[in-house]
Amino acid sequence: MTSVYLEELDAPTYAAIATSPGSTVIVPTGATEQHGPHMPLGVDAMLSRDIAAAVAQTMGAVVAPSFSYGYKSQPRSGGGNHRIGTTSLSATALMAGTDDVVASFMAQGFKNVIVLNGHFENYQFLYEGIDKATTRMRANDLSARAILLSYWDFVDEDTLSQVFPEGFLGWDIEHGGVLETSLMLLLHPQLVNMTRVVNHPPASLTPYDIFPEDPSRTPESGCLSSAVDATVERGQLLLDAITTAISRSLDSELVAVSGSPVPELVQGSPC
Amino acid sequence: MTSVYLEELDAPTYAAIATSPGSTVIVPTGATEQHGPHMPLGVDAMLSRDIAAAVAQTMGAVVAPSFSYGYKSQPRSGGGNHRIGTTSLSATALMAGTDDVVASFMAQGFKNVIVLNGHFENYQFLYEGIDKATTRMRANDLSARAILLSYWDFVDEDTLSQVFPEGFLGWDIEHGGVLETSLMLLLHPQLVNMTRVVNHPPASLTPYDIFPEDPSRTPESGCLSSAVDATVERGQLLLDAITTAISRSLDSELVAVSGSPVPELVQGSPC
Amino acid sequence: MTSVYLEELDAPTYAAIATSPGSTVIVPTGATEQHGPHMPLGVDAMLSRDIAAAVAQTMGAVVAPSFSYGYKSQPRSGGGNHRIGTTSLSATALMAGTDDVVASFMAQGFKNVIVLNGHFENYQFLYEGIDKATTRMRANDLSARAILLSYWDFVDEDTLSQVFPEGFLGWDIEHGGVLETSLMLLLHPQLVNMTRVVNHPPASLTPYDIFPEDPSRTPESGCLSSAVDATVERGQLLLDAITTAISRSLDSELVAVSGSPVPELVQGSPC
Amino acid sequence: MTSVYLEELDAPTYAAIATSPGSTVIVPTGATEQHGPHMPLGVDAMLSRDIAAAVAQTMGAVVAPSFSYGYKSQPRSGGGNHRIGTTSLSATALMAGTDDVVASFMAQGFKNVIVLNGHFENYQFLYEGIDKATTRMRANDLSARAILLSYWDFVDEDTLSQVFPEGFLGWDIEHGGVLETSLMLLLHPQLVNMTRVVNHPPASLTPYDIFPEDPSRTPESGCLSSAVDATVERGQLLLDAITTAISRSLDSELVAVSGSPVPELVQGSPC
Amino acid sequence: MTSVYLEELDAPTYAAIATSPGSTVIVPTGATEQHGPHMPLGVDAMLSRDIAAAVAQTMGAVVAPSFSYGYKSQPRSGGGNHRIGTTSLSATALMAGTDDVVASFMAQGFKNVIVLNGHFENYQFLYEGIDKATTRMRANDLSARAILLSYWDFVDEDTLSQVFPEGFLGWDIEHGGVLETSLMLLLHPQLVNMTRVVNHPPASLTPYDIFPEDPSRTPESGCLSSAVDATVERGQLLLDAITTAISRSLDSELVAVSGSPVPELVQGSPC
Amino acid sequence: MTSVYLEELDAPTYAAIATSPGSTVIVPTGATEQHGPHMPLGVDAMLSRDIAAAVAQTMGAVVAPSFSYGYKSQPRSGGGNHRIGTTSLSATALMAGTDDVVASFMAQGFKNVIVLNGHFENYQFLYEGIDKATTRMRANDLSARAILLSYWDFVDEDTLSQVFPEGFLGWDIEHGGVLETSLMLLLHPQLVNMTRVVNHPPASLTPYDIFPEDPSRTPESGCLSSAVDATVERGQLLLDAITTAISRSLDSELVAVSGSPVPELVQGSPC
Repeated sequence: MTSVYLEELDAPTYAAIATSPGSTVIVPTGATEQHGPHMPLGVDAMLSRDIAAAVAQTMGAVVAPSFSYGYKSQPRSGGGNHRIGTTSLSATALMAGTDDVVASFMAQGFKNVIVLNGHFENYQFLYEGIDKATTRMRANDLSARAILLSYWDFVDEDTLSQVFPEGFLGWDIEHGGVLETSLMLLLHPQLVNMTRVVNHPPASLTPYDIFPEDPSRTPESGCLSSAVDATVERGQLLLDAITTAISRSLDSELVAVSGSPVPELVQGSPC
Repeated sequence: MTSVYLEELDAPTYAAIATSPGSTVIVPTGATEQHGPHMPLGVDAMLSRDIAAAVAQTMGAVVAPSFSYGYKSQPRSGGGNHRIGTTSLSATALMAGTDDVVASFMAQGFKNVIVLNGHFENYQFLYEGIDKATTRMRANDLSARAILLSYWDFVDEDTLSQVFPEGFLGWDIEHGGVLETSLMLLLHPQLVNMTRVVNHPPASLTPYDIFPEDPSRTPESGCLSSAVDATVERGQLLLDAITTAISRSLDSELVAVSGSPVPELVQGSPC
Repeated sequence: MTSVYLEELDAPTYAAIATSPGSTVIVPTGATEQHGPHMPLGVDAMLSRDIAAAVAQTMGAVVAPSFSYGYKSQPRSGGGNHRIGTTSLSATALMAGTDDVVASFMAQGFKNVIVLNGHFENYQFLYEGIDKATTRMRANDLSARAILLSYWDFVDEDTLSQVFPEGFLGWDIEHGGVLETSLMLLLHPQLVNMTRVVNHPPASLTPYDIFPEDPSRTPESGCLSSAVDATVERGQLLLDAITTAISRSLDSELVAVSGSPVPELVQGSPC
Repeated sequence: MTSVYLEELDAPTYAAIATSPGSTVIVPTGATEQHGPHMPLGVDAMLSRDIAAAVAQTMGAVVAPSFSYGYKSQPRSGGGNHRIGTTSLSATALMAGTDDVVASFMAQGFKNVIVLNGHFENYQFLYEGIDKATTRMRANDLSARAILLSYWDFVDEDTLSQVFPEGFLGWDIEHGGVLETSLMLLLHPQLVNMTRVVNHPPASLTPYDIFPEDPSRTPESGCLSSAVDATVERGQLLLDAITTAISRSLDSELVAVSGSPVPELVQGSPC
Repeated sequence: MTSVYLEELDAPTYAAIATSPGSTVIVPTGATEQHGPHMPLGVDAMLSRDIAAAVAQTMGAVVAPSFSYGYKSQPRSGGGNHRIGTTSLSATALMAGTDDVVASFMAQGFKNVIVLNGHFENYQFLYEGIDKATTRMRANDLSARAILLSYWDFVDEDTLSQVFPEGFLGWDIEHGGVLETSLMLLLHPQLVNMTRVVNHPPASLTPYDIFPEDPSRTPESGCLSSAVDATVERGQLLLDAITTAISRSLDSELVAVSGSPVPELVQGSPC
Repeated sequence: MTSVYLEELDAPTYAAIATSPGSTVIVPTGATEQHGPHMPLGVDAMLSRDIAAAVAQTMGAVVAPSFSYGYKSQPRSGGGNHRIGTTSLSATALMAGTDDVVASFMAQGFKNVIVLNGHFENYQFLYEGIDKATTRMRANDLSARAILLSYWDFVDEDTLSQVFPEGFLGWDIEHGGVLETSLMLLLHPQLVNMTRVVNHPPASLTPYDIFPEDPSRTPESGCLSSAVDATVERGQLLLDAITTAISRSLDSELVAVSGSPVPELVQGSPC
């Protein structure tokens, strides 16, 4: 059986997939960012790749290599870009990389390119990159389409109330909190150290951003809420809910036209 | 014992490393590119990451997340960018990403940032990205330095004659050939299928590039020479030679100044 | 009495303000975007400018010329960029313009540059522009700071429950809805035609974006919820709540150092 | 009766105009720049918008939101970019914004996009932006055209001799002088204070530019010639001459093809 | 005796010049553009280089390699960019190249960098490039300055009346006319064929630009006025007037500080 | 007889060439870089232009104006960018200029655009520029093709053994060595001073690059090997070998389709 990860496929196998009817590739995008003392820097990249793999398996898609670096962490949704452990891209690099990769997959024959985001701050820059790639490819008569999503937007109310029985306070403070930690406990338990979780109240975020950042405004732990209530079981609830919801949405969206091999690839760069 | 991979470290552990005297981070850069019918698309990213890890272990460095996508494959050193299985970045994306990441590591306290390249076509764009980051950081009075290298440039004559007893024909035709396949047999044997290796003479490359590319000029296999002579033993010879030579070079270069923590991180983006 | 609008001030008056202690300029950012059949295309630019003026008056600030064009409208927060009436900027133009203008105000002596956003899709690109400007100016030893905010983030729970007595459904569907229409009824009644408001249920938005956009997913009216319940009174409630909350936040943030005139302006462009 | 200003139109009204035969939109471009002690910073933006409106009314066109910020003021045509009161864009921001907005109007159905410039230094960057937009839209089979003009290029010899009875010394020194002040006296009298006009000889400009700028070379007033002779009557003479000449030129140029609605808008950004 | 052309100097000779007190380099900028049937495509590049050399000899400066390609020819000052024979740069390329070269000369020790322009359309893009380079170098504490000029701006009234005894009609129509042809007859007689000069009235230019260009608006000859009255003598008058005036201006401007060698060159690129 | 240099041709002659069947233009690219004490700074630009002319004469091609400035000199192939005498472009400027010029020649009717490189460090940036131009022109249905080459890649083994009888040590150390000096002795003898050649052993290059550059690693002479064995005869051997080999390769590649004039040039910039 072949791998769901594109980088582990040989070229002929890949070519057969890329040019088949309704072919779909999922590009996970994360970040390299501090996630408190109890979790590793790669949380966003790991979770987006794991969820992409789970979704891909339900629908015969492949998972592309991850975007391991993301846009600058912002205090209103992450710990802030001033913290050691956070290595970020500028808008230009993230938009250009997204544009190149999406256009390249379309030019090779994929009918559907899904960008599955795992770092809040990335979204708008991914949007611009995909929009430019799609517009250019469409102008060249390629009929492929793209979809952009962040995985937490697929957690339903019912799951929320199970995972946060005392009430859900918003995605913005989930950086390093119960959501991410529960999923990591399920998927990468050896990289989580629950004894180091700091128990502090949720961060009280300002409704604005300050430049330069003021480090005193976010909790010293680097997390915007405490992960003390994270459990493997909650991770499983979340993973199941997310995977099911994304798969269901994509099922109803994906183009399933008969996928004959792209007759002639454009020169060098599709850009 | 902590991981050599930065993305598996928690923030406090990482901070201690980044701000220690002579701290060193290695950034592996690869590509997503077809490597013939017998090897996976991720060869360049896998090998640069593996070699980076081997080097890092000898010298107490950490390995950053890889650049999984590289510059367009060119027929004079790879299979060409027209082939299915090759997903590439433009120069702009690769240069901007390199600039951002190198500057970010310097701003966090690393004294030495090593970019370890595994895809020939990347080199000049990595150079420009590092040059811009270093110039800007130096203007801001950071004393960090960077080093750029491609791993095959560290194979000595003696090893070459052992690995290629019939004579070495040049690195340009080693795309998908004995070098890469031997290393993959050693490091990722489950991803190599030697029964699918095509036995064909080395590609006869033109001393010029044509735009648009002419697919008839490179072997149908996608490899520029045959990997039929690849073995695990040759992989081991190569890995040992490369790791030793890189480590020895870096040892004599690295800045080992007393590394007090960077007193105040610059705002948001160091760019 | 001098105007609160910078473009109506003569240069000596402006110079006195810019170089005074704690000097503050507010830059309103909007969009040119369809807002349904009952409101004009300039809603976002008008409201951000009006609110900026109200805030400026409470604190002795000046209001800069507006950014009248914004980033592409997205279906998850606006009507989508495919609709006639929506004229948008690319990420590059918006980021570069923000960077230039913020850096220019800092170079002229302003201690505080507030960017007051009135179009949801702009936020991240404004962030990048401000971050780059601030980083560069700080490297040149200017101590100015910047603040970025979207006005709706300052509506408190109490006001929300008065404006939406049947329950508030989220800011994402407020494009062309009760919030914007009530404010327009208060501030630009002659540009609102309530007889043309379409009474339809709130848009049911997908938790993902599709490229190219699918026009059938957003209501034909171009609004994401109906403005049928908009009133002048609700506009007044909102304006008062927003103005008071922004002013109070800024009061506690603004740098009030003694502002001697900047001794020597850097050459030509501060960029 | 509907407004001539696009931002005051509702979407259906706008759509009817944009898609009608020979539809025309005028984009005024100005600057935020000191204009001496007797006039406000917004002169260039105000005058280009007023003239655009006057022209639009004679020909059934609409006026788009202004570009309120312009390219860096240069001493050979303005007061120089070193003066407080001058807030400028870089070339990149101005070109990108022009490109986006012109392409966007063409994509929405306008057959003619007129860029009416009111700040000398903008011209070449507007040219590049329009050239790129038009080339791209033409490649996509849109037949729209664009026109670029600066309003003072439409003042005829006869009017010149009436407005400058002692002889006209060239447009380059008209920054803050009789031309602009007379037009402002006519169109925005409440923003002009003739008692603050400085009576000094015309600036003696060098035929070259120096970097960094030398503030001692331009008059301390910030004006390149004195506005002491400005009058409302001269403003009226100028406005009439300019409006008539522009309208007459455009009449003979504009494409009046039958304008059926654009069948399908391209995705998101037309860029 | 050493050459005035920098590219003909060896490195030690060049280093002595670059680091001497008041050192000056002149960068000629031209275009590759049709100049009618009687003159070669390289007129703008040739004349700017010749004039730079004449000026350099009077003041001990060196002449850098020319910018042989220029910004797009525009019908209001050249023949238009649609004509065969005109090979142009985009704004981005011209600005970036200017920025790089000016900054590089400053970093090597030159106290004065003169950009001597010979193609009207270049001016604003050269300005932006020089402004960015100077601003950046100044921020790095280099005290060099730059000057930008177009050579025709140094022709005095007296010379004009001798060269155009029937009256001077403006620089805008001198593309391929008496000015350029007379200078070419003097400096490159073997490349001028006066028998092919077309005798036609001066072009009647519109005071606006149209996109796409309308080829019917400029004379078929490609010249905006006839060169029928060009003579070697007029070329000599012009060259003498221009060279004298530029030299005199520069004499009074140039920084003549004691030029010790730059102690330490910044890394790689000064950019 | 007409010149082989494009800038010396008048427009009608050029137009006839550009639009003829199989029309070919060669663009030489060099650098402005120190080449030791015995040779001038313009070596790379001079040699690429001379070789282009020799090739052009054998095949009826024309030679375009040279790119006189090149990418930053790197210590592994040149003297390094820190040396006085080396004035370089950034990647952005070189890529953009290449893109513009190649696209412009294609748009004017040339069927073959050859970029003939004379500065090692340029290659990848020329590649990116050509790739982008060709892709865009192809999308616009132009059938032109481009070829990129560096002249030294055409020296055959036989010639090598004659020019380097003691053994050839690799192109990387030929900066300022026997190859370049012999060609300069043949083509520009008045610009070479053999008495100033320094006799030192070949540089021992590191297999990596360091940022910032370490000036102590390259020979003080600025040459990577000694030119003491350079002779006119070796220059002739090299020139003949190179010219013959390039001409033969191009002969077999060039498109010789019937070249009717391009019916309608695209607007302004082909970009």
